[in-house]
Amino acid sequence: MKKVVVSLSGGLDSATLLATAIAEGNEVQAVGFLYGSNHNRWEIQSATKLAEHYKIPFELIDVQRVFVGFKSNLLGGTIPEGHYEDESMKLTVVPGRNIIFASILAGYACSYGIDEVWLGIHAGDRAIYPDCRPEFYNNMTLAVSAGTDEKVLLKAPFLFETKAQIVKKGLELGVPYELTRTCYKSQQLACGKCGSCVERLEAFEKNGVIDPIEYEK
Amino acid sequence: MKKVVVSLSGGLDSATLLATAIAEGNEVQAVGFLYGSNHNRWEIQSATKLAEHYKIPFELIDVQRVFVGFKSNLLGGTIPEGHYEDESMKLTVVPGRNIIFASILAGYACSYGIDEVWLGIHAGDRAIYPDCRPEFYNNMTLAVSAGTDEKVLLKAPFLFETKAQIVKKGLELGVPYELTRTCYKSQQLACGKCGSCVERLEAFEKNGVIDPIEYEK
Repeated sequence: MKKVVVSLSGGLDSATLLATAIAEGNEVQAVGFLYGSNHNRWEIQSATKLAEHYKIPFELIDVQRVFVGFKSNLLGGTIPEGHYEDESMKLTVVPGRNIIFASILAGYACSYGIDEVWLGIHAGDRAIYPDCRPEFYNNMTLAVSAGTDEKVLLKAPFLFETKAQIVKKGLELGVPYELTRTCYKSQQLACGKCGSCVERLEAFEKNGVIDPIEYEK
Repeated sequence: MKKVVVSLSGGLDSATLLATAIAEGNEVQAVGFLYGSNHNRWEIQSATKLAEHYKIPFELIDVQRVFVGFKSNLLGGTIPEGHYEDESMKLTVVPGRNIIFASILAGYACSYGIDEVWLGIHAGDRAIYPDCRPEFYNNMTLAVSAGTDEKVLLKAPFLFETKAQIVKKGLELGVPYELTRTCYKSQQLACGKCGSCVERLEAFEKNGVIDPIEYEK
């Protein structure tokens, strides 16, 4: 049995990733990051609930001081509305966020004898996030392997899947999507209008299923 | 003129790296990391003095909470004495430290429009630190380029140089080595016995120069 640490944001993708890691018979634990975004506290609440649901250990790593000077509307600023692939959504990119999360998890895995780090990056993220693309992931995997003496393997099982395909898989696995948080805005109730909400709603619609979370009217 | 951020620990290698970046005519700033090692406070004091000496901006990023659960004698435990390449020195490896520092600097550079991240990794580190080897560095450079939309280049000018060669270069550049800190132990005065001190003393000896810092009797 392999030991796996899942990067758990509390969103739809990482919830499905967690369910997949468990369904494949691994010994699973999850790590979330407190990094100072507007919606972070709601994400973390979701991640905590998901970990409780699946009865797995969940650790929160506080990286807020790392991102203090970083420039992104996600860390403080207006969250654009509209489709995820729109140019305006680029404002929400946190420079190097996945590079940093993957690196920390690599060191963490190495410290705790964990074999694999699973990331929820997927095809839908690619348009705006350079650190969600295969060119990044492939090289990062090689860097992490070399940098940990081949002890840690980075895995991104959804690298070539769309959000709709992820939801399809999650529905099959019975992921409690009512516990997840996707909206980028800072209020508790999902707005239904930001790129993140729009993409989520589309993914459920494509599966002919109603998204179980509540949205702002 | 290129904008460069140097990873400045306050040690001999990064001091020479800083001097090299400045000598090459770049617009240079430095970042240090507060990561919780025993000797960290002395390193940072040295890094601060070096930045003052060269009149460049120096920012300290607090990553202590990232390394809280990480296992390494450098973070709390006995520092072995003897030669750097000895098996015992492996106890001082902080898993993934350079992967994490490089990643944070990549995101930082991206946020501030900095073109290059310079790391002081060198040939002498290779025996015990997997994240100081060319296989790591080469892949990490590709990952950072891809993950930042080709905005940030990782550079390790000393990747194939020994510590003695670094000191040779630093002496030519007039690096104020009296300001640097290398010892891994927690006391202020360098011990002269840990792997880090032994390697430093050797490097000066090979250049026929006396190390200007004071050592414990």
